[in-house]
Amino acid sequence: MKMKKFINDPANLTNELLEGLALSNPQLIELTDSKLVVNRKLDRADRVTIVTLGGTGHEPAISGFVGEGMIDISVPGDIFAAPGPGPCLEAIRMADKGKGVLFVVLNHAGDMLTGDMVMKRAQKEGLNVMKVVTQEDISNATRENGHDRRGLVGCVPVYKVAAAAAQSGKSLEEVAKIAQYFADNMATIAVAARGATHPSTGETISILGEEEMEIGMGQHGEGGGGRQKLLSADETTAIMTEELVKDLDLKSGEKAMVIVNGTGATTLMEQLIVFRKAHKYLAEKNIEVVANVVNELLTVQEMSGFQLCMARMDEDMLDLWEQPCKTPYFKK
Amino acid sequence: MKMKKFINDPANLTNELLEGLALSNPQLIELTDSKLVVNRKLDRADRVTIVTLGGTGHEPAISGFVGEGMIDISVPGDIFAAPGPGPCLEAIRMADKGKGVLFVVLNHAGDMLTGDMVMKRAQKEGLNVMKVVTQEDISNATRENGHDRRGLVGCVPVYKVAAAAAQSGKSLEEVAKIAQYFADNMATIAVAARGATHPSTGETISILGEEEMEIGMGQHGEGGGGRQKLLSADETTAIMTEELVKDLDLKSGEKAMVIVNGTGATTLMEQLIVFRKAHKYLAEKNIEVVANVVNELLTVQEMSGFQLCMARMDEDMLDLWEQPCKTPYFKK
Repeated sequence: MKMKKFINDPANLTNELLEGLALSNPQLIELTDSKLVVNRKLDRADRVTIVTLGGTGHEPAISGFVGEGMIDISVPGDIFAAPGPGPCLEAIRMADKGKGVLFVVLNHAGDMLTGDMVMKRAQKEGLNVMKVVTQEDISNATRENGHDRRGLVGCVPVYKVAAAAAQSGKSLEEVAKIAQYFADNMATIAVAARGATHPSTGETISILGEEEMEIGMGQHGEGGGGRQKLLSADETTAIMTEELVKDLDLKSGEKAMVIVNGTGATTLMEQLIVFRKAHKYLAEKNIEVVANVVNELLTVQEMSGFQLCMARMDEDMLDLWEQPCKTPYFKK
Repeated sequence: MKMKKFINDPANLTNELLEGLALSNPQLIELTDSKLVVNRKLDRADRVTIVTLGGTGHEPAISGFVGEGMIDISVPGDIFAAPGPGPCLEAIRMADKGKGVLFVVLNHAGDMLTGDMVMKRAQKEGLNVMKVVTQEDISNATRENGHDRRGLVGCVPVYKVAAAAAQSGKSLEEVAKIAQYFADNMATIAVAARGATHPSTGETISILGEEEMEIGMGQHGEGGGGRQKLLSADETTAIMTEELVKDLDLKSGEKAMVIVNGTGATTLMEQLIVFRKAHKYLAEKNIEVVANVVNELLTVQEMSGFQLCMARMDEDMLDLWEQPCKTPYFKK
């Protein structure tokens, strides 16, 4: 499939999209010369602050969630690529308003490498920062081998609950503990039906047969799952929901968050049909859906498919989730 | 291109997606037995209320904008099809809280036919309702022949400003006048790069060559524009912005709203790059962008492309636009 995208110089995608994001949200964010995306109200933050990093090409993730009540500074890499440690350290220094910084890293090789270097240098510098890693893709490793699990859309609620905890005046240790608790109690599984093209190189990201889908594909087209005949929305969702319930060991009477994250070309119509089935499946198991998002949060260009993310919820987590926030692409 | 969608029975798409929408937004909306999507707080509305109609398959439009500060009741048809007058009349009767109802209709043959029948019957019944039609697609008719212009994404800000005017206590005549004023001062043009498949029939919606795009395509693949070689984001956006400025006769010193509406598979990355160019183009003409949306509001399944919508803004319109609202897919 030939690339048909509305872009200019493929080498300049990240700069241009960030510029567009800043121009369309002048009240919420600010783009620095070194391409950090910064919460416009950061200067007034008398609390723990949240910094994260990640490649572009997954919009609105991650820079679209910078603002009030979510991420304070995002450090974008280039398309699908982690930034180096330099800008992350700059972000952490800028973000620390005296109460310390929570640094959220998604488990992908490049991000983790940068994250480790950042923490080493931060320690030398004496910066007050704690790192939390999100790793919730159940398709490529068991829960016991969580360090091999990829970080998918689950980073979004982790940002949200961590920021709400920070807002409420909790210490860095407490905020990190809450973020880690949420991260430990979430699980995600993805399905892809049609690939995408890398916007810089024009290369195809995953090739699937005309009748095929793949449950367990990573968000850059990494394998890990099973290719199979395309099933109906209900059949696909039932398989995925069952896997998540099993992984989380969710029991009758428990409460859950459900996120249906469209990865690009899968319509909101389909995402809503998927949510409907997940909701019904859980209702039959007496698991109550107390929080949800059905939308494109973390995309993979024009890939067809979705990520289904679930998290165990209690009243504390739900309260943090429900706190107001205002970012370009997530508001509460 | 074979259809690859996560759906179940193609005959049941609308029911299932509406059910998903209601299950994911229990605090905001309610789905009635006759499939009206109703603002959960409608009963407390001591003001003019807003009713609209339209086919599904364009999610989040239009039922995703029902809630506080936007649409009070949407009357969904089936996929790409207008509902009949019966449910619209039911909606108008239900919506009228003693101050009258604004009925917004997008200019498409089926919707207009229903809209006309509804108004005739409403008059006979003595219902207090006024109709406003949105018709802003500049590609298939001149401004003087506005009755031939299709209604595209411009309906979304019309709902928003009308609802804010209603909220402020204005009369039905005043609310209708404001909605009409906004509608008269907006213009939209679309571009498509890759077609989509009709989710019920599997039929292809528009076929474009591998190197082609079409500026001026309607939201069901209707022609009207010019097929041409795929241009860069900046070139495409400059052509479209110029046409809109000309149609609106926007002058140096004026203020504008810009909406970049992704129609499906075009990424938010691209939409942001397009917005960046539109913003720069207008800045060069000394036209200030005072309001914007960059997102998927009214989609055409997995079609690649976007609609660029512009409106002339003054302080009154901007104030209405900035009022808070809370719906499943548009919050302020």
